[in-house]
Amino acid sequence: MKRVMLTVAYDGTDYCGWQVQPNGVTIEQRLNEALSRLLGEDIHVSGASRTDSGVHAMCNLAVFDTENPMDPGRISFAVNTYLPPDIKVRRSMEVPADFHPRFAQTEKTYEYRILNSSFPVPVRSRYTHFCYYKLDTEKMDRAAKYLVGEHDFASFCSVHAQVSDTVREVTGAEVFSEEHEGAFSEPWREIVIRVSGKGFLYNMVRIIAGTLIEVGRGALEPECVPEILEGRDRSLAGPTAPATGLCLTDYRILWIEFEYYNPVD
Amino acid sequence: MKRVMLTVAYDGTDYCGWQVQPNGVTIEQRLNEALSRLLGEDIHVSGASRTDSGVHAMCNLAVFDTENPMDPGRISFAVNTYLPPDIKVRRSMEVPADFHPRFAQTEKTYEYRILNSSFPVPVRSRYTHFCYYKLDTEKMDRAAKYLVGEHDFASFCSVHAQVSDTVREVTGAEVFSEEHEGAFSEPWREIVIRVSGKGFLYNMVRIIAGTLIEVGRGALEPECVPEILEGRDRSLAGPTAPATGLCLTDYRILWIEFEYYNPVD
Repeated sequence: MKRVMLTVAYDGTDYCGWQVQPNGVTIEQRLNEALSRLLGEDIHVSGASRTDSGVHAMCNLAVFDTENPMDPGRISFAVNTYLPPDIKVRRSMEVPADFHPRFAQTEKTYEYRILNSSFPVPVRSRYTHFCYYKLDTEKMDRAAKYLVGEHDFASFCSVHAQVSDTVREVTGAEVFSEEHEGAFSEPWREIVIRVSGKGFLYNMVRIIAGTLIEVGRGALEPECVPEILEGRDRSLAGPTAPATGLCLTDYRILWIEFEYYNPVD
Repeated sequence: MKRVMLTVAYDGTDYCGWQVQPNGVTIEQRLNEALSRLLGEDIHVSGASRTDSGVHAMCNLAVFDTENPMDPGRISFAVNTYLPPDIKVRRSMEVPADFHPRFAQTEKTYEYRILNSSFPVPVRSRYTHFCYYKLDTEKMDRAAKYLVGEHDFASFCSVHAQVSDTVREVTGAEVFSEEHEGAFSEPWREIVIRVSGKGFLYNMVRIIAGTLIEVGRGALEPECVPEILEGRDRSLAGPTAPATGLCLTDYRILWIEFEYYNPVD
């Protein structure tokens, strides 16, 4: 029996999120089906980050146990032939039998993308949240900086979450924009909210994005963020921004050197 | 009666190209339906660039005639409510009654995007052509530079094209790459082939892309491009690269000042 860790990328648009559920197809279900077919066993993956319906990932992690003697580093190549184009495994490696990325010291990075334009842009509609009113990115960046550090993020946690400890550490937060211009089209830009942290509460990044959009359009001042944090009340923060703009872009596991188990390069 | 020009953007993945045809839904058909509904007339748009099935556009142009008194500059906003998320009009403006962008002096820019990675990346699969072997972008850029200028592009024209004059002017050609890295994922990059010109032959950019991919993987040397041009024989160039990587990114009309007809800002 060995434990294998996968790096998984997906376009979440057409899925009901990560976790298996009775109604609708999920990423976890498609991975279980593909791995079971490849390895000839009943495989159940366990994901590090159970992303919501419509959320994308460049780099989610999952582990599973198998008796199959296949080289763990080759599983990624092999399983991709059984996966649809919107879910792909980017890397596979053996890890210790008791390891699970969800319980390891990790740092995750999320990007929330806003299409800030007077018109929607079809080739970006699956991966951005469309805002037609002009947003002030300098103010949004200033507001984001107040989130960095260890804080009680109760105001940035869904009221449906069942957690007692709402203290989390945000290690980085920035807002920047990418400009696009064309001769016979309105100029447009994509605003990126990039947040890194050692842990996130349910809907935390989407509530951060919703709050920073309020700041960007002038409904809140950047200096309100410390007050929102101190208030520990969900109603003080902005709305939960739609899932479509969110992508889990990076996942780092701290303090463990895995190359020993399965050097790829 | 007035003539209105539209700037149209679309994700071509789920369409059978621009032009109306008996089997399958096209961009032109969706525009005709939406405009006819909005304006209460039987509207027929005429496109500047009749892109193939699967090809995307940030900036295609089309004109149509209407008796409706609606402010031409407002048509873009109004018609978008009748269009699906993967087709949007980014601008509308009145133009002279005898104007058609297809017969005007224009400069178009196309980008062909290659996902160059050992693994596919789901959030880019609709907009890139996947190449798992490593491509040499420096050589590709050197090869592209030979295309700039006025040449007979017969070698870069589909054998199904019905044109007598295959001389076209390419005003710019470059190849560059965008690098992406993650902690637990293989690094990947997107290679962009950007070609501008005053006119293009059928499949010309896709054949240029297919030829530059051959250069990038070492099957052809950059110095072969002048010989391929001189040979005026389709079989000398590389294969036609798949439509999915191609996007019409900009369209400029030369020598005409339109702001008179309908200032937008």
